[in-house]
Amino acid sequence: MEKSTQNGAVKEEQPKSSGDASVCGYDSLHHLLKDNLKPHHYQEVNRLLTGLNCGKPLDTIVLPESATDLSVQHGFDLQAYSFHAEKELLREPRIVRVGLIQNSIALPTTAHFADQKKALFEKVKPIIDAAGSSGVNILCLQEAWMMPFALCTREKRWCEFAEPVDGESTQFLQSFALKYNMVIISPILERDMNHGEVIWNTVVVIGNHGNIIGKHRKNHIPRVGDFNESTYYIEGNTGHPVFETQFGKIGINICYGRHHPLNWLAFGLNGAEIVFNPSATVGELSEPMWSIEARNGAIANSYFVAAINRVGTETFPNAFTSGDGKPAHADFGHFYGSSYVAAPDASCTPSLSRNRDGLLVTDMDLNLCRQVKDKWGFRMTARYELYEETLANYMKSDFEPQIIGDPLLHKKSS
Amino acid sequence: MEKSTQNGAVKEEQPKSSGDASVCGYDSLHHLLKDNLKPHHYQEVNRLLTGLNCGKPLDTIVLPESATDLSVQHGFDLQAYSFHAEKELLREPRIVRVGLIQNSIALPTTAHFADQKKALFEKVKPIIDAAGSSGVNILCLQEAWMMPFALCTREKRWCEFAEPVDGESTQFLQSFALKYNMVIISPILERDMNHGEVIWNTVVVIGNHGNIIGKHRKNHIPRVGDFNESTYYIEGNTGHPVFETQFGKIGINICYGRHHPLNWLAFGLNGAEIVFNPSATVGELSEPMWSIEARNGAIANSYFVAAINRVGTETFPNAFTSGDGKPAHADFGHFYGSSYVAAPDASCTPSLSRNRDGLLVTDMDLNLCRQVKDKWGFRMTARYELYEETLANYMKSDFEPQIIGDPLLHKKSS
Repeated sequence: MEKSTQNGAVKEEQPKSSGDASVCGYDSLHHLLKDNLKPHHYQEVNRLLTGLNCGKPLDTIVLPESATDLSVQHGFDLQAYSFHAEKELLREPRIVRVGLIQNSIALPTTAHFADQKKALFEKVKPIIDAAGSSGVNILCLQEAWMMPFALCTREKRWCEFAEPVDGESTQFLQSFALKYNMVIISPILERDMNHGEVIWNTVVVIGNHGNIIGKHRKNHIPRVGDFNESTYYIEGNTGHPVFETQFGKIGINICYGRHHPLNWLAFGLNGAEIVFNPSATVGELSEPMWSIEARNGAIANSYFVAAINRVGTETFPNAFTSGDGKPAHADFGHFYGSSYVAAPDASCTPSLSRNRDGLLVTDMDLNLCRQVKDKWGFRMTARYELYEETLANYMKSDFEPQIIGDPLLHKKSS
Repeated sequence: MEKSTQNGAVKEEQPKSSGDASVCGYDSLHHLLKDNLKPHHYQEVNRLLTGLNCGKPLDTIVLPESATDLSVQHGFDLQAYSFHAEKELLREPRIVRVGLIQNSIALPTTAHFADQKKALFEKVKPIIDAAGSSGVNILCLQEAWMMPFALCTREKRWCEFAEPVDGESTQFLQSFALKYNMVIISPILERDMNHGEVIWNTVVVIGNHGNIIGKHRKNHIPRVGDFNESTYYIEGNTGHPVFETQFGKIGINICYGRHHPLNWLAFGLNGAEIVFNPSATVGELSEPMWSIEARNGAIANSYFVAAINRVGTETFPNAFTSGDGKPAHADFGHFYGSSYVAAPDASCTPSLSRNRDGLLVTDMDLNLCRQVKDKWGFRMTARYELYEETLANYMKSDFEPQIIGDPLLHKKSS
């Protein structure tokens, strides 16, 4: 693990992000709570925070030694849980094993681009092997996993990392998909060779036979803090596809799309059973939202959500400003990891480490989606026709909001 | 406080709801954490859970002795916080003081209906006085505050509690609105005298001069667990009105509507700066969702959300079943209180007690709404036209979801 802190280097440990300086070294919220609360208090806090039945934690899964050995050898966090669902009379359980990978970059951002990418391939390889040997059916990597998240710099040279959908990152992963009979979701920076070589923020969905099933492009593009990503690519043109894979129907809500309830909704309307949210986001900007939005997406849409965030602080060769009046700087904060999975019944896993690479494995019975739909009836009670009309009205230039004024508004108080 | 536990009585303390038996007596999640974690750990947990800047808690407000005396005398929880917003150059701060009341019922459900209602009036009076003497500008009570939440019984006799919009509960509150120059939001069971005397689940918005500004009816009606409320009333016909009051533009998302992101959205599109969510919900059903949905509503729509839930266990004279195969029973669980306020910047207050009546007072600068809109740009990046089309397609009977199939789906794995 790199520890150098000079310019252009990777700082993975002891992040200096705001807010956690006083307790540096704790690994995750759940570890902090579990290590410092009495068991019966932790049980109750856990019930309230992670929605577990009577405070009973999710069952853990015993993974094969080959996987745990890899996690020890390469120092990545490895956690595995199983969600609960009811047995049905007419349908067999549809248990799917899902894996999420979070990681820091592997070489300083000053290294040759080819070396950086190669080092990233080498870094994620043992984590993918751990997933494969754990019998993971669907594996998802983090947003733009094949490069540093250099979009804060506004420098166009990072575009060189972009690849066509069938480029080298895809080819690298196709071999694992075939080897492990595993669907792999690969978020990359895409270069569209057939349309003027423009850049997109894209996920490639690789089938369990190593074939490319299709792609999806990020629907909502942030212009916030250091992240004006529209410097590089604009809003996606692929709608809200749901990929029907061997192991279930999946959608991908890329990063900033998690702030948009309509984006979550559309994947649900198209039939997704699991929606992945590969992200790259830093502590000061978004950490208090992290535990809210993916869970709300799962609850509101009766599907599973798998949320992934990268790890570590990435330092760039040239300083940049952030439009906040502060001095120019070479990094834009700590990617806080904390990947987790949320279920439609409002339960969720603990999150992976805030500081280390990690693999989160979860077993989910996709039957739970329909069970929750039948129980809560959110689709049945949604009144979509009302909202189609609302949106249609809102988009008119002469839209008038539905305001009920107080006729005594400007009367003086007695 | 009533402690009798025989049939038809009010059990307010030591709730027997699932999950909290082992730690009965803790007052709220935040008390549990604060009392049992070291200060620097609590600070970090608080940062992650409530989104406070560097773990710094919200400032508390010192309330007048008249208010604190009332809380001691009548045994209700009283908490008061102030949210942070930036100073702007061209707009003065628009600080609004908001109050939320949560309470248990006052008499056994077997008491004469007139006595029950009168006792509820007597019970909330000192809490309203505490709000008034604290300078609260906008006060909201819980859902159907003027009656027990008897809808689980399916007995039609509880309809007798219903009142016209200008009925006795409204009249009772109008005097306080005038006395304290306070907007009051009063969720009632409404009887519409002009339309065949049908029943609605309604909020009446009373202006600070004691006038009735208008009403809004619950948009989404639950059919879940014991709550098939459509036994009594159906989906509201009042759209998503935003009430322009002396102190800000407010919307009301009644209870089950909080599970519907589109409902939150529509109040936002109509310009709400604060959305109230008066609720009545029990632990086993919804508690793990409680801290998620209102906060997500606030974050996604760049407004404040004030979430209120009633308190205690209500026991009814005649046993009823819940469609879950379990024996008939006379109560449907513990209303867990835990009212709180969430801000658009992802911060939130601690919640009120799980077990006791309470008044939560918060100061919020409504300028924060636009500040967050400008920072995060969720409206700008929302692509509403895409979703109008999605909803229009979805509602067609021949709707075909956007599915991308794997052509090798049924190929045998090698």
